[in-house]
Amino acid sequence: MIMHYGVNKIPVGVLGASGYAGRELCALVAQHPRFSLAFATANEQRGHTVHVGRQDLTFIATDDAPLDQAAIVFCALPHGASLPWVERARAFGARVVDLSSDLRPGNGEDARRAVYGMPELGSTTRASIQAAEIVANPGCYPTSILLALAPLVSAGLLAPGATIVANSASGVSGAGNSPTRELLFAEVTEDYRAYAVGNTHRHLKEMTATLSAFGVDDVDLVFTPHLLPVVRGILSTIIVPVVAELIDATEPFRMAYPNEPFVEVVREQPRLSDVVHRNVVRMTATMIAGTRTPTMLVTSAIDNLVKGAAGQAVQNANLMCGIDECVGLPA
Amino acid sequence: MIMHYGVNKIPVGVLGASGYAGRELCALVAQHPRFSLAFATANEQRGHTVHVGRQDLTFIATDDAPLDQAAIVFCALPHGASLPWVERARAFGARVVDLSSDLRPGNGEDARRAVYGMPELGSTTRASIQAAEIVANPGCYPTSILLALAPLVSAGLLAPGATIVANSASGVSGAGNSPTRELLFAEVTEDYRAYAVGNTHRHLKEMTATLSAFGVDDVDLVFTPHLLPVVRGILSTIIVPVVAELIDATEPFRMAYPNEPFVEVVREQPRLSDVVHRNVVRMTATMIAGTRTPTMLVTSAIDNLVKGAAGQAVQNANLMCGIDECVGLPA
Amino acid sequence: MIMHYGVNKIPVGVLGASGYAGRELCALVAQHPRFSLAFATANEQRGHTVHVGRQDLTFIATDDAPLDQAAIVFCALPHGASLPWVERARAFGARVVDLSSDLRPGNGEDARRAVYGMPELGSTTRASIQAAEIVANPGCYPTSILLALAPLVSAGLLAPGATIVANSASGVSGAGNSPTRELLFAEVTEDYRAYAVGNTHRHLKEMTATLSAFGVDDVDLVFTPHLLPVVRGILSTIIVPVVAELIDATEPFRMAYPNEPFVEVVREQPRLSDVVHRNVVRMTATMIAGTRTPTMLVTSAIDNLVKGAAGQAVQNANLMCGIDECVGLPA
Amino acid sequence: MIMHYGVNKIPVGVLGASGYAGRELCALVAQHPRFSLAFATANEQRGHTVHVGRQDLTFIATDDAPLDQAAIVFCALPHGASLPWVERARAFGARVVDLSSDLRPGNGEDARRAVYGMPELGSTTRASIQAAEIVANPGCYPTSILLALAPLVSAGLLAPGATIVANSASGVSGAGNSPTRELLFAEVTEDYRAYAVGNTHRHLKEMTATLSAFGVDDVDLVFTPHLLPVVRGILSTIIVPVVAELIDATEPFRMAYPNEPFVEVVREQPRLSDVVHRNVVRMTATMIAGTRTPTMLVTSAIDNLVKGAAGQAVQNANLMCGIDECVGLPA
Repeated sequence: MIMHYGVNKIPVGVLGASGYAGRELCALVAQHPRFSLAFATANEQRGHTVHVGRQDLTFIATDDAPLDQAAIVFCALPHGASLPWVERARAFGARVVDLSSDLRPGNGEDARRAVYGMPELGSTTRASIQAAEIVANPGCYPTSILLALAPLVSAGLLAPGATIVANSASGVSGAGNSPTRELLFAEVTEDYRAYAVGNTHRHLKEMTATLSAFGVDDVDLVFTPHLLPVVRGILSTIIVPVVAELIDATEPFRMAYPNEPFVEVVREQPRLSDVVHRNVVRMTATMIAGTRTPTMLVTSAIDNLVKGAAGQAVQNANLMCGIDECVGLPA
Repeated sequence: MIMHYGVNKIPVGVLGASGYAGRELCALVAQHPRFSLAFATANEQRGHTVHVGRQDLTFIATDDAPLDQAAIVFCALPHGASLPWVERARAFGARVVDLSSDLRPGNGEDARRAVYGMPELGSTTRASIQAAEIVANPGCYPTSILLALAPLVSAGLLAPGATIVANSASGVSGAGNSPTRELLFAEVTEDYRAYAVGNTHRHLKEMTATLSAFGVDDVDLVFTPHLLPVVRGILSTIIVPVVAELIDATEPFRMAYPNEPFVEVVREQPRLSDVVHRNVVRMTATMIAGTRTPTMLVTSAIDNLVKGAAGQAVQNANLMCGIDECVGLPA
Repeated sequence: MIMHYGVNKIPVGVLGASGYAGRELCALVAQHPRFSLAFATANEQRGHTVHVGRQDLTFIATDDAPLDQAAIVFCALPHGASLPWVERARAFGARVVDLSSDLRPGNGEDARRAVYGMPELGSTTRASIQAAEIVANPGCYPTSILLALAPLVSAGLLAPGATIVANSASGVSGAGNSPTRELLFAEVTEDYRAYAVGNTHRHLKEMTATLSAFGVDDVDLVFTPHLLPVVRGILSTIIVPVVAELIDATEPFRMAYPNEPFVEVVREQPRLSDVVHRNVVRMTATMIAGTRTPTMLVTSAIDNLVKGAAGQAVQNANLMCGIDECVGLPA
Repeated sequence: MIMHYGVNKIPVGVLGASGYAGRELCALVAQHPRFSLAFATANEQRGHTVHVGRQDLTFIATDDAPLDQAAIVFCALPHGASLPWVERARAFGARVVDLSSDLRPGNGEDARRAVYGMPELGSTTRASIQAAEIVANPGCYPTSILLALAPLVSAGLLAPGATIVANSASGVSGAGNSPTRELLFAEVTEDYRAYAVGNTHRHLKEMTATLSAFGVDDVDLVFTPHLLPVVRGILSTIIVPVVAELIDATEPFRMAYPNEPFVEVVREQPRLSDVVHRNVVRMTATMIAGTRTPTMLVTSAIDNLVKGAAGQAVQNANLMCGIDECVGLPA
């Protein structure tokens, strides 16, 4: 089902609006020319009014959300809390973009009920999103890594049995805004460290399940996230054994994303400042010199709150509503 | 030749004292109980007086260095400018610790004239340093990576034909204090990027030559440095194919470094704040879960200006002078 | 003379486009619905192409600027270099917004040729700007301080003979992007200091001349700028002896700026994060408790590159072109 | 009573050791050549072991503190919680350095029981501290401001009826390490704001009471603290009406502190990086040009955790124990 709206604004709601991703969503919706914000919930901050764009926005309790008044519900509740609210919104007829990990590939049976919302993965993906009742919005790390691997998969360039090493570094907004000692300014500034090492991060199974859906089952993916002393942005540095030395390592990426409005294939190294506050993934690739078997370095950068969360959610909602995918999104 | 000094202080000189490493060297020498600073040169800042510890220090031109008055000369001149000064200091009978890359392994014929000064690489290394006339002080990245790989080499754990992936992230002091636009605060803060990608960094050959000297010739090392928005510190995240699943991945490291005063093998992830302003390398290791062939993650952290430069240089000078390796060094 | 344009875009040029203010100007013009960028000059970076919004922009030499092709020329050349270019642009018939200090109040005879472009200073100001051939765009510190003092002046609240103490703290982008050692990341982060103390800052005479133009000649203004480890933003903390204790210290400010689109009078303390990337000044006021004579604290925050430079320049250009003052400006 | 100890180490205890000031205290005690750490309490973190210098330190519950085993007890408990513990420690015969505000000047009757521990305020102060049973360790802001005003008071330079404007900017460690949203990295970095405005900060009465004790009752002190995006350090910018134009504004400061080991009167502007991790106050002064009545700017910098808290506490304890005031303190 692809909905078509005329000139009227499409009412959307946000469940869990006080986190960094939720606030980014509200800001994007506030400036979106085709969406109007029907409600925004935040249990802890209910009754509080915040400025979003040029509007004032008062949070309500999640239990008080008028789910019947939204055509699209963005669910930005914590991981594990999402499913009942997705079902409740569906019962009221709303279509849902869920930003939690609960319905993403690799997260059990419930994931089958949702379409994985990474539009650039291919034309069938886009069509599925357009028709979806529930879209599972991808995780931030998977967005930066899968969009960097997909062109190599589709071009048949991944070396069989390869060990792919993905090192990612993320700004602190990825860890949310609940006050914990380890996220205090004095603990983060001038520091850097790995965490969730040894393939223990929640996002790993989302990536391996998606690769598996592409038919890639014979590779190992080693994923190590790091915490950067910055607010926004993820840079992923990915080492990939490939089947051939390419003269221009960026070619498969330019071939894969010829007209994607939100993918930038470049020749210089992408940096966080290139992508913050923008709904893009920016990437480049180069061959590693002097290795005995062909090895490629792919680096990709996103804003974890935009292309890695709220921006991609709006992009998916645009598709679901049959409007231009780029509307309301900062590129 | 191992020199022995009595209670008198040993006169040392610093060539190239105005860079970050040179200043750190002067500060360490100033508080060193057995060294006295005979001179410090800095062409651009000659005549300038700076406070180092509780002392005032006036830079002189490098050409004016009284090389005959120092038993040890630390040479912290730019890469490429070191060799003639090393020879000149030798002609005056001084022993030299050279902090440039010019005399390190992998940097041509000249490297044979120097002992590579990484004391923790083994007991023969220490003896060689003690007797050396010229010590090539290791690079910052090689210090963090080689000390993390050496225990796996000596334990025979490296998988034959392995591709070792070393991702390192460094604070900006590693790039020196020459004013360039890309090191301005406004260009560095809230940013992060890879550089010298594709195995093009000067430090790569230092690492591969050292591994080769260990007899490790059949592996690929892929090295990607990154620039962090912090002043000091390097964290290296190293993925290593190994020959066996270990129950405790830290064991080979604890075995390799049982009594090293400047190596900390820990169980939690090392972070920059653990090591800044200290002459230590701090590391841990863990097996990657779920890979088809055994794969280990080793992470190591150093202060690039201390264990990665000036501290290690003083450690080497201590050895050369026959005094306790730890004297004057912040652990 | 107020120009009126129809639906066609108004061609504007930027002289000195590679500094932080110049780049911000280009970005604002690129997304401005009524302006088109005729040229952007940058001698050092001529031939370089940069991305501005969704456009590519290639810098030309300033000498090559086609001044006849712009209706409005923004002059963002260094202080002291502006005047000949302003004259040259005028000779071609262009109207000019000059961002240097050369034509501002207090800077000698040349200042008489320009209208001081701070629209919120009063209705006559706005009319003068609309008709101006040359507008001197205010300095960043004066914008934050004068807009905070003007309501007290117009309400007759300044105590006669008062000493007004204005402490301002600015992000490093205010110092430009020429590479100097003191603006390196390693020198700025985790640091803070005063500079240009003792009323020696270039902006002081701009402020005293403007106060004098208001008829305020019997007060002392003590101005101390500071350098913050942030990229953007100025916070001014101003202590003002006043003639009466006010029950609500914000009242004169709300009265003075009832409908100003770019002034926010609030009750909580303004912070840099409230104003960065926005063309607003945000301010509050409170009485100091327990003083023997009535004393007020006014705090005001701006983005030094937007309301303190490029944004205010576009605001002035909007007025000069007879279009809505808010067009193309992020509020 | 001045205690004299021989070569034995003096046992000291720390109540409230897990905050930033408490941890700094433990670190200073750990490296102090004459003190040994008898205990360190931290209710929330009891049982936790931390590394302090080269020692391991396990926190115990405050109720379990063996108060009879310490000659000196440092009390770094929260404001309001200190008094009963000071009394309990006294009952066991320990002398106390209290870091809370509870016993400082201006904080009611209890303050009379303690000596205000700012040694540089004068020779009688030092003698009083040496003999004190209870020392109230000064607040961080008062340390930076009072040491900058005292020379003007003692030289009779303060203008009668003056309004002194003290603007201070502090790093976040001054706000403690309890996790609150407003101290998260993402909320502090790239931001700056005033707080506790209008003379509402707790430290104001400590300053006015101390000035009053000097006989200065006819001035107004306007104090506005600000929050800096740095970890450590306070810079105070103080505007003072004075009775005369001085040719060298630093002279009264050099006269007042001729041999103070922890006061640095300089000519260049002090900056945070000059003082962090050091037990010093660094200051300069200059006359304001062009004012109708003589006005002086004094700027002073301290490390809020060292000279503004733990370092000054150790300095006081040194005096109380009859040992060299400088022992164990980084200058």
